[in-house]
Amino acid sequence: MRVTLGANQYGKAEVRVVRVRRDGPRHELRDLNVSIALSGDLAEVHLSGDNGSVLPTDSQKNTVYAFARRYGIDQIEDFGLLLARHFVDSQPALGRARVRLTEYGWQRLGPHSFQRDGAESRTATVTVTADRTTVESGLTGLVLLNSTDSEFNGFVRDPYTTLPETDDRILATAVEANWRHRDGEPADRTATREWAGSYAGVRAALVGAFVDTYSRSLQQTLYAMGHRVLAERPEIAEIHLSLPNRHHLPVDLAPFGLTNPGEVFVATDRPYGLIEGTVTREADGVAGPVDGGP
Amino acid sequence: MRVTLGANQYGKAEVRVVRVRRDGPRHELRDLNVSIALSGDLAEVHLSGDNGSVLPTDSQKNTVYAFARRYGIDQIEDFGLLLARHFVDSQPALGRARVRLTEYGWQRLGPHSFQRDGAESRTATVTVTADRTTVESGLTGLVLLNSTDSEFNGFVRDPYTTLPETDDRILATAVEANWRHRDGEPADRTATREWAGSYAGVRAALVGAFVDTYSRSLQQTLYAMGHRVLAERPEIAEIHLSLPNRHHLPVDLAPFGLTNPGEVFVATDRPYGLIEGTVTREADGVAGPVDGGP
Amino acid sequence: MRVTLGANQYGKAEVRVVRVRRDGPRHELRDLNVSIALSGDLAEVHLSGDNGSVLPTDSQKNTVYAFARRYGIDQIEDFGLLLARHFVDSQPALGRARVRLTEYGWQRLGPHSFQRDGAESRTATVTVTADRTTVESGLTGLVLLNSTDSEFNGFVRDPYTTLPETDDRILATAVEANWRHRDGEPADRTATREWAGSYAGVRAALVGAFVDTYSRSLQQTLYAMGHRVLAERPEIAEIHLSLPNRHHLPVDLAPFGLTNPGEVFVATDRPYGLIEGTVTREADGVAGPVDGGP
Amino acid sequence: MRVTLGANQYGKAEVRVVRVRRDGPRHELRDLNVSIALSGDLAEVHLSGDNGSVLPTDSQKNTVYAFARRYGIDQIEDFGLLLARHFVDSQPALGRARVRLTEYGWQRLGPHSFQRDGAESRTATVTVTADRTTVESGLTGLVLLNSTDSEFNGFVRDPYTTLPETDDRILATAVEANWRHRDGEPADRTATREWAGSYAGVRAALVGAFVDTYSRSLQQTLYAMGHRVLAERPEIAEIHLSLPNRHHLPVDLAPFGLTNPGEVFVATDRPYGLIEGTVTREADGVAGPVDGGP
Repeated sequence: MRVTLGANQYGKAEVRVVRVRRDGPRHELRDLNVSIALSGDLAEVHLSGDNGSVLPTDSQKNTVYAFARRYGIDQIEDFGLLLARHFVDSQPALGRARVRLTEYGWQRLGPHSFQRDGAESRTATVTVTADRTTVESGLTGLVLLNSTDSEFNGFVRDPYTTLPETDDRILATAVEANWRHRDGEPADRTATREWAGSYAGVRAALVGAFVDTYSRSLQQTLYAMGHRVLAERPEIAEIHLSLPNRHHLPVDLAPFGLTNPGEVFVATDRPYGLIEGTVTREADGVAGPVDGGP
Repeated sequence: MRVTLGANQYGKAEVRVVRVRRDGPRHELRDLNVSIALSGDLAEVHLSGDNGSVLPTDSQKNTVYAFARRYGIDQIEDFGLLLARHFVDSQPALGRARVRLTEYGWQRLGPHSFQRDGAESRTATVTVTADRTTVESGLTGLVLLNSTDSEFNGFVRDPYTTLPETDDRILATAVEANWRHRDGEPADRTATREWAGSYAGVRAALVGAFVDTYSRSLQQTLYAMGHRVLAERPEIAEIHLSLPNRHHLPVDLAPFGLTNPGEVFVATDRPYGLIEGTVTREADGVAGPVDGGP
Repeated sequence: MRVTLGANQYGKAEVRVVRVRRDGPRHELRDLNVSIALSGDLAEVHLSGDNGSVLPTDSQKNTVYAFARRYGIDQIEDFGLLLARHFVDSQPALGRARVRLTEYGWQRLGPHSFQRDGAESRTATVTVTADRTTVESGLTGLVLLNSTDSEFNGFVRDPYTTLPETDDRILATAVEANWRHRDGEPADRTATREWAGSYAGVRAALVGAFVDTYSRSLQQTLYAMGHRVLAERPEIAEIHLSLPNRHHLPVDLAPFGLTNPGEVFVATDRPYGLIEGTVTREADGVAGPVDGGP
Repeated sequence: MRVTLGANQYGKAEVRVVRVRRDGPRHELRDLNVSIALSGDLAEVHLSGDNGSVLPTDSQKNTVYAFARRYGIDQIEDFGLLLARHFVDSQPALGRARVRLTEYGWQRLGPHSFQRDGAESRTATVTVTADRTTVESGLTGLVLLNSTDSEFNGFVRDPYTTLPETDDRILATAVEANWRHRDGEPADRTATREWAGSYAGVRAALVGAFVDTYSRSLQQTLYAMGHRVLAERPEIAEIHLSLPNRHHLPVDLAPFGLTNPGEVFVATDRPYGLIEGTVTREADGVAGPVDGGP
């Protein structure tokens, strides 16, 4: 039994690029965080220190900036495709490029003035190999709360169960979602506005399902959110949701002679429930384990 | 084509438990962060809101505290095994339990006085299914630096490459490592001290290889670290290393009439290189892509 | 020369309270982080361990929750005044109570559904002593950017100056502002809607001045922001602004045969400039040092 | 009543500099974060945008790197003095320079290999004006815990008090301490090793008093820590301590048929008590309020 190199990848992470488009008095702004991971025939660099097939991570960073100037940045999916294809096409040693992009939003205040949006960000992950291109879009940091229409009842009671059943609780979560576009969708890769419309549609479906669902568990809400995305958006093949259950505990005010009819809560940090699941249209789902997690 | 549930899991994340053993005047302290992820036949909770197979995450949290009292906490791998087996054995709906544990270290200052160690933590991930148990041990936050004996030369130069070659640079990284124990190793699961010895041995091999290796790239150093672990520790089947390249850039002091012979550096935050790889003894390694990444 | 106790204070920090008002189908939400600091005749607790004058920080926390239920939470300034006056009035040992409050905003999505706003938060600091009450309002996390109309020229050039002059740069900052209300303003303390209107007015003045000012330095922009607040809002006595200069560095694209006419920038984390200043109407300003800082 | 400029300052924050001393095969490493704040006659820059008296923050950054090369870095107090005096002496417009320095520690692993220490850091704040120089040393991130010999009894019980009295609890805190050196101490400013010895002595006194004190409150422990520093270290004039009370709550295990004799605890994040105080030898202490706080 010998020791050998297994799977590996390398790249530049967290390249921060801000692109201003200043064709006229009204500027446009794009603010991205780009991470690149490349893999391929890189055994020699590990085994012998021969760097002959290594494109430096510094060059990868430079490519981000040069491409931002040469091609502009409109939709992050397109910018990721440009970058990933460039690395695979130009470097013979590379079999796969994966580019992850986070876009920080800015609201317009004036022709050249902007205010940063909050914690919510739009994301994309583009993976290119010789024979397949995959595009995932996503979002992170979307914090949602329903102050009623959430219950949790009928669960297993084992010897360690003390949780009371409840038919009215706060349900709050910070949505992290990643959805994979069907192959060939949108059909015309040059139609960049497709990505924006698709993103807006998926986001609206996620928020709408969270708001509309009378929740018997966060799992049920998760499925409702994923189901609505797939029902409304034919271009999406699959969606993965990671939903921390941000517990809001009602405070016992009886010691102070007060009732608490669902009005005063402690917002807790830790521990939190973590509910993760995939909703898919590709085949019969298998309720098997999700890799990854906390 | 119908919409359906795919892979899913749920559990309580970041249960913070501190266990004091006070058999005598000299107390012992264990300080853990425990995250649980359960999966199995949980379709109904998602589809119909029927919680009849859901063990609440609150009960999972209670189990951590009750087990800490009943069984104590010595090695985190053992505590994780206890918890994971309990969930799979006691809940018919569950096919898999994964428990991730982080242990925060404390140095002794007196019989009942302690000082928290730094950012480095010991970790474990225990996965139990009906027919297989996997134990991974690990560490995170181990920040290492060599102030010389690191070069980076002979790399690809594409049109976006401006990086000069160097034969003397700072090499610094924050090691995140996870290594899988071979099945049945250590042989006697009740011999808890095996985990501690194994951990100390792996950690020493990682640090030793980082210190001893004249580095031609961080990839080469990564492989040297993994290789030494597998060469010295027969109980380890495979190790995965994630090594951010924390760039230290030499400052150009020429404008101030000063040379800078490798003495003054800017420690940068972003971007950083990210080098990831697996070293294995299980089969011929395949230099394919690593899932996950930045 | 003997050792003795100097200034001291104590209290509960970061009490997280969420208050739902559910008078009808349309719920209202308030989400606060409250920190309390009390001081007074507390020498004995330090010197002899006599806790006879110590109101536990746990009781302070309970008071926040009980008051949230009993009085509701509308404007954070009012809720802070209630709490601070309560502690000073009810505890003979206490000479001063200071309550700091941060309010996290939520946008309405439905009758009982909400989405968390971003990183920007509204703040207040209320200080009550036997003979004076001070109310400061504020905000934090308001990130603003102008993509032009900012220059930096004519500065001192010492032997360590290499910065080129520029007549067109990005100006970006994360505003932290605290403004003190004039004594007796708003006149009627029970007119809670005054606080909300005052806050909206100050915020609009800050944003408006940032957007409108052609900037020769961030210091000049700071003064313009503070000046506009005092000019437009007679109820404000003084405002302190802390403005980190979030540098956006233009990328040199010449090695790639590209120009960069103010279009592609690196958004940097560290180091950053930090510009702090007070604008006041109380007396002739003294350009002396500000205590505090990075 | 006219609007005018009040107190103000500006500077470069968080300059990260790593200095390697490589006189021989055994390298020495210093790793600092330096923040500079300058104030003086800077009204014109605010009022008219005239930058004629502004030394750019970029030049301040360059000065840090150039001085690191020219003078080396040994004790952070000395490096801060060099920088602060330079700014006040060379810039006529400046009346005051304050330099704050944080040093990250590294343990030696080999002649040129190092491992980063944990979260604890050594700090200094140097303030220079035309007629006074003040040096404060400090530390942050020193997390200490006693698992017994801590009680909390005899406190005020108001209508919001539910906390039970306890004669055995965990006492844990993250020490942030800043101590001012007496004027002219250490006498010989060139004797740099004085700072290191003084730091080690103060740190030992802080830790020793925490370990040795049977605690009736964290306030009492705070005073004991400050008192010991001043009793043992004649060169220190005053010390300020900020001690968050990191609550460890015993878990109620009765529902599971288990006792909990001080063995199993929840480590909580928020809320926390925050105890702040100054111990001084300069005059009779006045138990007045501390400015600053949570």
